[in-house]
This record gives sequence, C-alpha cells and structure tokens, in this order.
Amino acid sequence: MSDITRVALDAMGGDNAPVEIIKGAVDAVNENENIIVYVVGSSEEVDRELSKYTYPSDRIEKVYSTEIIETAEPPVMAVRKKKDSSIVRGLNLVKDGTCDAFVSAGSSGAVLVGGQLLIGRIKGVDRPPLAPLIPTSKGVSLLVDCGANVDARPNHLVQFAEMGSIYMEHVVGVKNPTVGILNIGAEEDKGNALVKETFPLLKNASGINFVGSVEARDVVSGDVDVIVCEAFAGNVCLKTLEGVAKTLLKEVKAGMLSSFTGKIGAALVAPSLKKALKRFDASEYGGAPLLGLKGLVVKTHGNSKSKEIKNSILQCVSFKEGRISDRIRNKLEK
Amino acid sequence: MSDITRVALDAMGGDNAPVEIIKGAVDAVNENENIIVYVVGSSEEVDRELSKYTYPSDRIEKVYSTEIIETAEPPVMAVRKKKDSSIVRGLNLVKDGTCDAFVSAGSSGAVLVGGQLLIGRIKGVDRPPLAPLIPTSKGVSLLVDCGANVDARPNHLVQFAEMGSIYMEHVVGVKNPTVGILNIGAEEDKGNALVKETFPLLKNASGINFVGSVEARDVVSGDVDVIVCEAFAGNVCLKTLEGVAKTLLKEVKAGMLSSFTGKIGAALVAPSLKKALKRFDASEYGGAPLLGLKGLVVKTHGNSKSKEIKNSILQCVSFKEGRISDRIRNKLEK
Repeated sequence: MSDITRVALDAMGGDNAPVEIIKGAVDAVNENENIIVYVVGSSEEVDRELSKYTYPSDRIEKVYSTEIIETAEPPVMAVRKKKDSSIVRGLNLVKDGTCDAFVSAGSSGAVLVGGQLLIGRIKGVDRPPLAPLIPTSKGVSLLVDCGANVDARPNHLVQFAEMGSIYMEHVVGVKNPTVGILNIGAEEDKGNALVKETFPLLKNASGINFVGSVEARDVVSGDVDVIVCEAFAGNVCLKTLEGVAKTLLKEVKAGMLSSFTGKIGAALVAPSLKKALKRFDASEYGGAPLLGLKGLVVKTHGNSKSKEIKNSILQCVSFKEGRISDRIRNKLEK
Repeated sequence: MSDITRVALDAMGGDNAPVEIIKGAVDAVNENENIIVYVVGSSEEVDRELSKYTYPSDRIEKVYSTEIIETAEPPVMAVRKKKDSSIVRGLNLVKDGTCDAFVSAGSSGAVLVGGQLLIGRIKGVDRPPLAPLIPTSKGVSLLVDCGANVDARPNHLVQFAEMGSIYMEHVVGVKNPTVGILNIGAEEDKGNALVKETFPLLKNASGINFVGSVEARDVVSGDVDVIVCEAFAGNVCLKTLEGVAKTLLKEVKAGMLSSFTGKIGAALVAPSLKKALKRFDASEYGGAPLLGLKGLVVKTHGNSKSKEIKNSILQCVSFKEGRISDRIRNKLEK
C-alpha cells in the first residue's frame, strides 16, 4: 500500500464553494505531507483560488470540470447527464484507481447515488449508509444511518451494525465496540415496527457487541459506540444535535455579554470554555463516510468551511490505513 | 365555567414520586389561588408528605388509592386490571367531571392508553398525539407527536396539524400559527414515504397555515410554530434536544471551572447566563398535553421534580381557559 493518500475533492460543492473548499485543500496538504489532493472544478475558479496560497505544487493536482450538480437537481438524472460535473469526475477518479477517496460538500443525493452507480457497492452490501462520528461526553460515537436510506428494512440495520463496528474498531480504535439501536424507550418491547423487528436480529447477530436500545437523550452521553437507525430518524437526531448545540452556544454567549460584569467574566472564561466546546463543534470531526462502497466517499456538511474540509481530507488517511472497504468486504461478502 | 381549575395529580408516578410530586402540588396551590389539586396516591405517603407543608387545606383534596402501575408493565393490561391505581383513579376524576385535568409523571403507556380508554377520544379524532412545547430562540414551538403514535399515517399528521394549530392559537396565543412538517431536507420531494404522502395533504388542508418542511436543525430556531411528525421521529427530536442541552450546559460549566481565571469569570457570568439558559430548561415548560381527548391529560417527564409538576399544574389553567377540547371538537367532529 502506498504511503501517499490521494483524495479527489469536489471544489464546486457546498454553500462556500469554491473559496472555503480550496482553502481546506491547501491547509490539508500543508498539514500532512503524505496527502495529495486532486482539486476538481472549473478551471477559472480553481486557478484563481489556488493562486492565493503557498503550497507544495506537487501535492495539489488540478482537474478541470465544466459542470456543476445543484442541490435541488434530481440526483439520478443529474449523475447520468452531467458527466463532466465535479461530482462525477471526482467519483471517477476513485473508480479508476487514481484516488483513494472522494470528498464533497455538494448535493447529498448526487454523492450517494453517484457513489453507488459509479464506484459501486461491495458485494453483499444492500444499502450503503452515511455514518458520521458525533461528539459525546466520552469522545465520539458513530450514528449509522444519518441520511442515505430512508425506510430501511431490518436486515439493512443489521448490516449497518456490522459495518459500523468495523469502522469504530479499525478507524477510531475502539476495541469490541458496543452497538445499540436508537429507540424511544429502554425496554425491548418499545419502538416502532422497524425497531421491534430489528431488535431480535441484532440480538442474534454474530460478531457484534449488541447492548440494546439507546434513547435519543443518551446518544450524546457516549455510553454506546455504534448507534444504528433508519436514516430519517438518524438525520433528525444528528440535525437536532447540531441545531441545539449551535443555538445554545449563541444563547450562552449572548447571555454573558448582556451585562457589564458578564462581559468581564466572559473574557476570563473564554479560553477554558473554548476548549470544552471545541469537542461539540461538528467541523472538528470532518465528514461522514458512506460505508459499504468499493472506494471511500466522504460527504461533509453543505455549509462546510475550510476547517471541516481540511479535517475531512485528513480523515481519509485513517480510512485508508483502517482498510475499511477490505474489512467490510471480508465480513459481508458471503 | 367555574373560575376554579381542578387538577387530579398522580402522586405515585415518576422517578421522584411521591416527594417531588406532592411538593409540586403544594407549590402550585400556594402560587395560584384558583387551583384545587386532587392528590391521588397511597394514604400513608400522601399524608406523610403533605404534613410537611403549609397550604390552604381547602385547596388540596386527598384521594387514596392502593395500586401503582409500573413503567415496565404492559399498559393495556395494567389499566384494565389496576382499577385502584393512581393513574386509573386520577383519569376517572376527569371522566366523572370532578376534575378538569389529570397530570402524571408515571408510565407514558398507561397514561396514553388510560386516557383513551377511560376519558375517550373526541369524535373525529383518530389518534391523540403528545404535544410538548419546546424552547426555541424566539419563544416556544409545539412538536406534535412526540411519543403517542408510532407508525402514524398521513391523515393522522393532518389532524395533528389541526389540533396543534388550535393549541398554539388559544393556549399560547399565537395568531394564525405556522405549521411545518419535520423533514430531512427543505425541498418538497425530500423525505420518507410518510412525509411524501403527507406533504400534499397538508398543502391542501383548509384552516391551517402550512409553510412546508422543517429540518431538525431548524426546529430550535423557532421559525415555525407547529411542527408535525410521526411519534418516533418526534421523540428522537425532543429527546436529542433535551440530552444535548443538558450535556452541553454541563460541559460549559466544567469548562469554566477548569482554570483559576475561569472560576472568577464563572462567578461574574453566572447571573446573566442563568437567565439566558432558563429558557432551555425543559422543566420550565411543564408537561405535554395529549391532544384530542374529551378531557385534559398532561404527561410530564418521568424524572420531573417539583418545579415541573408545579408548572404542569399551573398550565392546566390556560388549557381550561383556552377551551382546547371544545375547539378541537368543533373543528374535527364533522
């Protein structure tokens, strides 16, 4: 295995493209000398943005594309028609072996569909889930699935548990990670039809360390390493977490600055507060991989700034070292 | 309509029963002289706890019951068999007209099932949802349903929207409240099967102010007054909100106290911070009503302390004044 990790980056995707995306690429190659980023985007914008920075020129490759897939476009049609879009070109760089991973802050639908159509699922994997690490009181947990497969079936959730366990063990380094199912009560008979059907399957699945139901209020406590769920519920959990964290921190800040003594106090608490809150900052954790594809595809938030892009690129090194796709293939390709 | 609001209170339900529950009752009657609380529970515990306090003796009635429904009990069976439980006795006080409302921190399942079996649904209402007010940047929003009806159907969600709008208008006082559907994207074609089927129904429903999809991250921004959802997703949203708020505030506090200057700063920011954060304290908002029953049934958190119990009891005055059940009957009884 090459020591160099090659990452194709969608320079045109997301609310802050191309400025923040390309800054993230430059920051990544300046931080880790074993990364080469293939920046895929319009020649004019890629050239203009890259010209602003100093970086080792052999560690950023420019790949010019002429089309952009918009967020609102129907994904299947967009991926089929826009062959020269930054998403299709980037995915193809993974497909043809030029790159190890593809990172995009663009259309989730197009990245998910494109990942499956162009790179393809590992044999045995029914539905590749989106699996972000979420911050908890104890570190991080993996929430699978957060948006790829709405209305999933029970056997899909079992695969999410298997793939998530491999991820937590070999990328994050948690030995024999615990697995729970997102539920609305702690008892085995609680839940909707999907959870009730899935529960016994997880209980009887071999090779995972299933510990039962996890209520949404306990997700951030970090007691369970891998939390499986259908994508609608997972997306609601993840987005609520992000929304509340953001709103609450704004309120905390506004509250402190609302009085004179508060302002002085705020200056004094700022450094230690920042450290504590950094852990709940989504951009620290990079993007979410789509598990179960033949290559690595990482989706970052649509509103990603350079820090999240940089972290998403750096993360690809651990993915590569963890040989996630190989391990999933060994486990699920029966 | 009598100026007095009569509230039946389950003294035996919840993690902190009977101590905190009964303290909440005493605090409520001491705060509002137009409330009479019927404290339902074991004679020994009710007498012992009430003897600790001073309160106008004509404003607390003791109702002795001998049985308790545990959280883990199958609800239908429990409600049918335990006729002398605090939940069944309390619900019957509403059924027979003695009380205007029933408040419980006990078994959600038993309260939901008992409310439907004993008090009954308003004609035309298919599924009574649990509808808590949730704190937002702008005030409060109503999240319907947060736990009563998993795997609800599209027409149920339309009724949630209708009942929730009545609640926000006549209890909370929001004129022509906006209604949104909890979704995983802003576009109309996003969502799971349930949301896709429900969306056009809401769009065409008369008498509600439907504004489209609400992503979970925007729930706390408070832009939409009534957010409808299936109970599993709603419960995940609500519980994540509560879990994150609690965890984050703990981290903020720990962060501030981790250094010497932080400690001094913390003392200075404490008063203004407290004020800002009070709004995100679930116990400030009392319990969640079960909308669409012939009488008022309010479920509070299982871990409620006296403040939440007190607020839940006080809230019943607004419910009564808002004549919610009458208005829902007029709207839905076609």
